[in-house]
Amino acid sequence: MTQALYRLHAHTAATMIRDGKLKPSTLMQAYVDRVAELEPTVGAFEAINTEAAIQKANALDRQTPKGLLFGLPIGVKDLIDTVDMPTTYGSPIYANHQSVSDAVCIVHTKAEGGLVLGKTVSTEFAWRNAGKTANPHRLKHTPGGSSSGSAAALAAHMVPLAFGSQTSSSIYRPASFCGVVGYKPSFGMINRVGVKPLADSLDTLGTMGHCVADVALLAAAAGRRHDLVLPSEPIATHPRIGLFRTPQWDHASAETQAIVLECAERLSQSGIRVTTVDSPPAFESLLQAQVTIMEAEAAMSLSDEYSAHRDQCSERLVKAIERGYTIEIDRLFVARNVVRNAIAALEEIFREVDVLLSPPAAGEAPEGLEATGDPMFGRIWSALGNPGLTLPYGHGATGLPIGVLLTGARDQDRAFLHMAQTLEAKLRR
Amino acid sequence: MTQALYRLHAHTAATMIRDGKLKPSTLMQAYVDRVAELEPTVGAFEAINTEAAIQKANALDRQTPKGLLFGLPIGVKDLIDTVDMPTTYGSPIYANHQSVSDAVCIVHTKAEGGLVLGKTVSTEFAWRNAGKTANPHRLKHTPGGSSSGSAAALAAHMVPLAFGSQTSSSIYRPASFCGVVGYKPSFGMINRVGVKPLADSLDTLGTMGHCVADVALLAAAAGRRHDLVLPSEPIATHPRIGLFRTPQWDHASAETQAIVLECAERLSQSGIRVTTVDSPPAFESLLQAQVTIMEAEAAMSLSDEYSAHRDQCSERLVKAIERGYTIEIDRLFVARNVVRNAIAALEEIFREVDVLLSPPAAGEAPEGLEATGDPMFGRIWSALGNPGLTLPYGHGATGLPIGVLLTGARDQDRAFLHMAQTLEAKLRR
Repeated sequence: MTQALYRLHAHTAATMIRDGKLKPSTLMQAYVDRVAELEPTVGAFEAINTEAAIQKANALDRQTPKGLLFGLPIGVKDLIDTVDMPTTYGSPIYANHQSVSDAVCIVHTKAEGGLVLGKTVSTEFAWRNAGKTANPHRLKHTPGGSSSGSAAALAAHMVPLAFGSQTSSSIYRPASFCGVVGYKPSFGMINRVGVKPLADSLDTLGTMGHCVADVALLAAAAGRRHDLVLPSEPIATHPRIGLFRTPQWDHASAETQAIVLECAERLSQSGIRVTTVDSPPAFESLLQAQVTIMEAEAAMSLSDEYSAHRDQCSERLVKAIERGYTIEIDRLFVARNVVRNAIAALEEIFREVDVLLSPPAAGEAPEGLEATGDPMFGRIWSALGNPGLTLPYGHGATGLPIGVLLTGARDQDRAFLHMAQTLEAKLRR
Repeated sequence: MTQALYRLHAHTAATMIRDGKLKPSTLMQAYVDRVAELEPTVGAFEAINTEAAIQKANALDRQTPKGLLFGLPIGVKDLIDTVDMPTTYGSPIYANHQSVSDAVCIVHTKAEGGLVLGKTVSTEFAWRNAGKTANPHRLKHTPGGSSSGSAAALAAHMVPLAFGSQTSSSIYRPASFCGVVGYKPSFGMINRVGVKPLADSLDTLGTMGHCVADVALLAAAAGRRHDLVLPSEPIATHPRIGLFRTPQWDHASAETQAIVLECAERLSQSGIRVTTVDSPPAFESLLQAQVTIMEAEAAMSLSDEYSAHRDQCSERLVKAIERGYTIEIDRLFVARNVVRNAIAALEEIFREVDVLLSPPAAGEAPEGLEATGDPMFGRIWSALGNPGLTLPYGHGATGLPIGVLLTGARDQDRAFLHMAQTLEAKLRR
């Protein structure tokens, strides 16, 4: 084999294991070696137990492969409870916290043979205060947040698959910054029990990997949705693409804009129907509506921490919670109404197109590890609840990754993933 | 004072404490005595710490009253985490479970001066498997479920206020069976963090007490919604009432039907506009849709318990979870679509009326403590997310309480509570 094992796509490794061509322990060892090499500089993990992971992989060596994820190492965002590893939620308040049960997504991941290698760094309660993680592509730059560790661990090939979660842009932004695929399923698709809540009407569990088939595989397992498993090569789909600049377009860097337009052009030249879709009026105040909903809900969600452990909350978090508490209920209702109207407008759009193409982030990962970049481009999609997926595509002015964002119709994840796999193949360089 | 202290409405007791006419410790002692007398036969509590409650009340005696609930004893459904008392979720799996933080509703309850007297019995994970609680009105009859202990503790005047939660009919049914007021706020109104999830798109936290002003008071505190506090006497409102039989009408007992019709008649005679509202076609399969959504979501939510502790789950629970796992995703989507259509139809109805009047349960509390009665009449409202409130009104053939259900427009809880208070006064016997 000429390719390093740790570069295998997860679905390929899973097939090799199933076919007896690869042992779980061999695969796990490749990632454990990789962790030993890169984790000291990247800092993607909050907790890691390589010994236990190798033991579990050894045990699988002696079993007949079964389950979607048999023998695959998995990174788990440290916002997600695990019964055999601590969960800090990115906060010193929970530095010694050990949950008594696995989150539902982890129960199903384990039932499918997945092996949790470690807990990946989350920002503080998945909000804005950054963790320790660096962008593997350039260590002085942020990996993005809040699923910082998952994106970085993938970019450094320390795991082949990882969980993320998104309330504003916490899957799309780090995936784009780190050059990996980040999938946010439809709101509610993967059960959230055992995931520390931030904003009840926005929090969405998702998956990250190196290709569409991989993120689909982990989502299929975690969500008990075997119908989401993709073939290794796409079956022919003919998605109608809408080039959708979003109201935030002018905030995207020149390279980001160019990359989205280039994608549209390439798809058009490959025979895909591409039309331009204007942002509907209902979208105008959607970003602000998401901010209002998130701040109001998140302040409530973190009431215990604010009330009982304020000295262990970052100043940034305390200020955000206090801002949230001041939001009048009528303002919250106005914001929710904006979202409802935008959802209705978007449903009309999805009668004419199947996939919207837009930027997942403003540009490259900014320099500095204190902040995680602007979540602006993810916010509207988190509020709307549509499935979406970032694909790495090009590079910015300084050479860091830039992605494109595909968005599908709500609850149509199966069809969307098939179309995304088609588009991924057409956009392959 | 001729009236026993434990019969005071919570908002009256709160006013007396604020005015220096009642000491928190005196009030608490009245309830603690009541618990000593009645708890052995009623069995409303899963855990109770009278000593700690008295100590806390004593401490409040020395403070200047502040907060909506200053010195009021509160019963907390044992589905809700408390940092200073165990939380079992109604399951032997969690017999020794001590959460590390308070649920958000408890943080705010305590911040308003409320004193948690005990944890009230919940059915197993708030589903159907009954706890030990008896109906104080007749001990061989169920108090209803899943908020069994809260309803029974109120009916026995062992607390003046209690928390409940509803996924199908777990506030409406026990409130009706026990002759108390049960308030289910709009979906999402009271933050659910720290409450064991059952079905993410249905679970609703609510409050129970002896009058509309009381349930509003606890909701105002728990939800940080001070605008929900009601005056002690209603201000004049002129709600337009819709007599709404629901598609389940034929399953209601003759007395239940007669009581709902009598209420409509009395309101009409008091000058309130009452019209009959037909159940829209979208409601026809709504009950079944709620069952589908609940079973599918609840099975997922309880995956860890099912997978790791099946031997400690009731047979009834295991069967329900297994039924939930078999629900195909397309069937779930159809069910969600039914709910969406019914919500749209209901919005049209609420252009013409302000409050719908319907039965909260099929009839009186059935005999036997093994089951908690049929949740049929609550299901549709849990799926729709509208605020609603049961008022005790009459009695059934055997003399047990029967209530009526008022339902308001979604997210209009403030206006709804004011109207409910008007109607409560008009229906007073």
